Amino acid sequence: MPSYKAPVEDVLFLLNDVFGFERYNNLPGFADASPDVVGAILEEGAKLCEEVLAPLNLSGDQEGCTRREDGTVVTPKGFKAAYDAYAGGGWMGLSMPAEYGGQGLPHTLNSVMQEFTSAANLAFGMYPGLTQGAMAALLVHGSEEQKRTYLPRMVEGAWTGTMNLTEPHCGTDLGLLKTRAVPNPDGSYSLTGTKIFISAGEHDLAQNIIHLVLARIEGAPAGTKGISLFVVPKFLVNPDGSPGERNGVSCGSIEHKMGIHANATCVMNYDGATGWLVGEANRGLNAMFVMMNEARLAVGIQGLGQSEVAYQNAVAYAKDRLQGRALTGAKAADKPADPIIVHPDVRRTLMSIRAFNEAARALVLWTALQADIAHRSDDPAERQAAEDHMGLMTPVVKGVLTDKGFDNAVAAQQMFGGHGYIEEWGMSQFVRDARITQIYEGANGIQAMDLVGRKLPRDGGRAMMRFLQEIEAFSKENAGETALKPFLGPLAASVGDLQKATMWLMQNAMAKPDNAGAAATDYMHLMGLVALGYMWARIAKSAVAAKAEGNGTAARLDAKLATGRFFMERMIPETATRLARISAGAETVMALPAEMF
Amino acid sequence: MPSYKAPVEDVLFLLNDVFGFERYNNLPGFADASPDVVGAILEEGAKLCEEVLAPLNLSGDQEGCTRREDGTVVTPKGFKAAYDAYAGGGWMGLSMPAEYGGQGLPHTLNSVMQEFTSAANLAFGMYPGLTQGAMAALLVHGSEEQKRTYLPRMVEGAWTGTMNLTEPHCGTDLGLLKTRAVPNPDGSYSLTGTKIFISAGEHDLAQNIIHLVLARIEGAPAGTKGISLFVVPKFLVNPDGSPGERNGVSCGSIEHKMGIHANATCVMNYDGATGWLVGEANRGLNAMFVMMNEARLAVGIQGLGQSEVAYQNAVAYAKDRLQGRALTGAKAADKPADPIIVHPDVRRTLMSIRAFNEAARALVLWTALQADIAHRSDDPAERQAAEDHMGLMTPVVKGVLTDKGFDNAVAAQQMFGGHGYIEEWGMSQFVRDARITQIYEGANGIQAMDLVGRKLPRDGGRAMMRFLQEIEAFSKENAGETALKPFLGPLAASVGDLQKATMWLMQNAMAKPDNAGAAATDYMHLMGLVALGYMWARIAKSAVAAKAEGNGTAARLDAKLATGRFFMERMIPETATRLARISAGAETVMALPAEMF
Repeated sequence: MPSYKAPVEDVLFLLNDVFGFERYNNLPGFADASPDVVGAILEEGAKLCEEVLAPLNLSGDQEGCTRREDGTVVTPKGFKAAYDAYAGGGWMGLSMPAEYGGQGLPHTLNSVMQEFTSAANLAFGMYPGLTQGAMAALLVHGSEEQKRTYLPRMVEGAWTGTMNLTEPHCGTDLGLLKTRAVPNPDGSYSLTGTKIFISAGEHDLAQNIIHLVLARIEGAPAGTKGISLFVVPKFLVNPDGSPGERNGVSCGSIEHKMGIHANATCVMNYDGATGWLVGEANRGLNAMFVMMNEARLAVGIQGLGQSEVAYQNAVAYAKDRLQGRALTGAKAADKPADPIIVHPDVRRTLMSIRAFNEAARALVLWTALQADIAHRSDDPAERQAAEDHMGLMTPVVKGVLTDKGFDNAVAAQQMFGGHGYIEEWGMSQFVRDARITQIYEGANGIQAMDLVGRKLPRDGGRAMMRFLQEIEAFSKENAGETALKPFLGPLAASVGDLQKATMWLMQNAMAKPDNAGAAATDYMHLMGLVALGYMWARIAKSAVAAKAEGNGTAARLDAKLATGRFFMERMIPETATRLARISAGAETVMALPAEMF
Repeated sequence: MPSYKAPVEDVLFLLNDVFGFERYNNLPGFADASPDVVGAILEEGAKLCEEVLAPLNLSGDQEGCTRREDGTVVTPKGFKAAYDAYAGGGWMGLSMPAEYGGQGLPHTLNSVMQEFTSAANLAFGMYPGLTQGAMAALLVHGSEEQKRTYLPRMVEGAWTGTMNLTEPHCGTDLGLLKTRAVPNPDGSYSLTGTKIFISAGEHDLAQNIIHLVLARIEGAPAGTKGISLFVVPKFLVNPDGSPGERNGVSCGSIEHKMGIHANATCVMNYDGATGWLVGEANRGLNAMFVMMNEARLAVGIQGLGQSEVAYQNAVAYAKDRLQGRALTGAKAADKPADPIIVHPDVRRTLMSIRAFNEAARALVLWTALQADIAHRSDDPAERQAAEDHMGLMTPVVKGVLTDKGFDNAVAAQQMFGGHGYIEEWGMSQFVRDARITQIYEGANGIQAMDLVGRKLPRDGGRAMMRFLQEIEAFSKENAGETALKPFLGPLAASVGDLQKATMWLMQNAMAKPDNAGAAATDYMHLMGLVALGYMWARIAKSAVAAKAEGNGTAARLDAKLATGRFFMERMIPETATRLARISAGAETVMALPAEMF
């Protein structure tokens, strides 16, 4: 059975050495997050993920969820107890405000826990994950009464949340949605319609499920400007706050999916269900974006989580499986064959995953830290810079970390040969589970368009300029450091490719928008390579410094430097191919008439 | 439900226009394969695949195979009738010699049928596929008596065949295998041992199953030099040729796999089973290589098949699904939204798959034609050239077509958004089924090592030189053709990268073998890009000629030219990144001590 060890030590190195987490202790909640406290929290979270969630991953996949005839849904054996342990540990409210029962700690720590959770058991992690998205939307857009009614119970984990966007005929294009909301005399609304692909839409883990639902108020404009957000609890809430009468929303069926079997993906039927408007009428899409950005970052983290757990299990197998001899002569002459980790092609595969994981983890933490600054700083300029970063990086984190996360799960599975294809080994599940992260919360093609069409040009390209300036400043500052030369040279080349690609878009996409569309996915990955390369340069700087100061074991820091050089020599050069594709433009992409396909 | 249309027209264009199939009618069997006959055969095969095999694909996946307590295995509903239709159509013996009941037609046609079959229903196609591999080994290495006993029944499809190589502790490294063969007084052997991952090892489609089994004769040397090949029928054959007494081989269990659920993957227990030596004692690995080369090409074809069927269904969905508006303004203003095929990122995806499929199909036919020449020509120089080509291209066809085939199935699934993740849409199955092709018959890392470590240096690099010379001659011959300029320029650049990579290997791999191992996978894909690029140049030449002569519809030929230019502008430039990785060498790949992983 596969196993999982949360990379606590690596996270602490990133937080303390690379990003100087302590520097931010002027921000609310950060003062409580001293290195010792952070270490203790992460160890506790790691234990939960390693000992409770991970052991349920394979069995959860095999058992799946079951919908009973009465519309209730049963989660796999052990999930309820695991959920109680998760909720009881206070993890749901880790970064939620204290007034609703949360611990008010930095969101950055929550992101770390998201990685651990989704690596240990992605299908499980989605139950609290969706709840956190729903809480975020209520926190920002809900009325005081709504917050008081729902948040404390969600923070303690007694109730969970969902996001209801997709309908059978519309996912990406929400302007087409048909679910209707008819005003009731008491100020509530009656909602009627069908929502599909609702993760955690129905289950047996919590006493109540709080659905956030996009619908169109009778008479509202067509398209996206007539969409409103509603909160629709599964059980109406009594005046004393307890769950009361059953609301008119039910699970019509659950989907048979490629993966995440242990998470119920529901068709939700709204038959005159009572709901309450969240935020302003017809501004529902805006309110939903709060959830969506948070969710997109979380999904990127899921991609990293699957990549990490798949890597760990591939390493264990590669050290254990004896097959063939090293090209340079037997390494385990006492055994019938060498462990396959001696083979360069196996190493190449493992190093590729590792070199991604460490940099991706840094990118996640860097971005999560910006989210904290954006939400908690009292300096408007600092907030703006952080928001710029968040806006720019959200599609990159979502798109690149899930595309690569999936590829890495596949590569890790490949290390097992035929055994990787057999379900009981668990590697197939990582591939099947990781696959959804490229699809949900905006398929990755949509992320790429969001980056190229919206985030990049916004405010005259301010966010991108800031990103490039930061890399340039870092490179200048460290230009004299010999140990960083193997990092700064390739990084500069990749930045050059990114600049050329950006310039090409500026010159060619305005007149011909198809040029932007045809370039989008390659641009997103080019940008991802540069961002990951920059992360490696920063990790290398901190590793060199830590080595000089005698912090940490030299072998571990040397391994970081070697892994970073692997990235710089073998992975970042891909920017050249990405640039070539981008500059090729849309002509051959759009050349065929549709009927010739 | 997904559907499939066999690309007969495209195959005929390749055979007739690009490769001038008729030129070879001096070879045995080719005279019978006039363009009309070939067209009729392929139409018949297409019909079987489209109307009988494809409709059973999804249901076969969902139902899977069942092993009964008595060790017999039941295939999914409809498979027996489909198998009878396949066998009854004479497809098993299409290219087998007439003396055993075959039709003696070119193997090239068999390869075409392999693509159609494995696109329509990969799990089904493996039953006849394994049989063909077993027949090939018996044909070359079996005694006259063995051929007479087994081949006629296998050709007619009454009996099927298997390959038994893998054991629990060894797959790639067959030198470790433990299955024992003890000589009996009558010249037969008693085989004892356990084989795993035996595709089609037990089923209810045929009256008998002829296992080809690798085992070690008692007292034989350790390692690969002590392995012999045996034929072990499930039912011993009576003197009159009918199946008689049950032999001591049985299916112990079947595996729960990620995909190809409708093909039984068996643990086979040999308990003193009676077998007969095939070929010489201790030369079993050589004999098995006949099956393996054939099987490797067939697996490459399976990768193409999955890519093609996934593409076709993604196209159908992209034309049908309404979501969003074209960047250049509404294309279907009368509808609530445009079909998603208007979006450049969707087009980019579809074009990438299409541009691969057409060139990969050409590469398969070109290579299959060489197999025919190698087996049927009476000119030794022609045979040698064909064998060189086969040896060089086998790992490339297997490794590249399956790696890309899987990637393409994933990309096609992505076009469906959330629906792609739901099993009933069938796109998940293409991904899950395609995944095995990267693993079995030698995982793709093994293919890459076979290419770099064996096929490339063999005979002083003769095969590679011939390949490069052929491209050079073609390029020179067509240098004046303006319409081919967009093809020949990028092709020359990619050839330059391949030459540099080859030179780098010559200079760096001898002294440090790890440099070869670390380069192997990238070299294989670099070589694949050049081979596919050369195929596109040849297709383009034929398309230009056909257009000039007014053969075929101009729109279809123009589509070919545009698709080829897409390949040249956006896909072949990847050779630069591959070269960068290869030239980076093994240092960072091997830098970490194993315990630091």
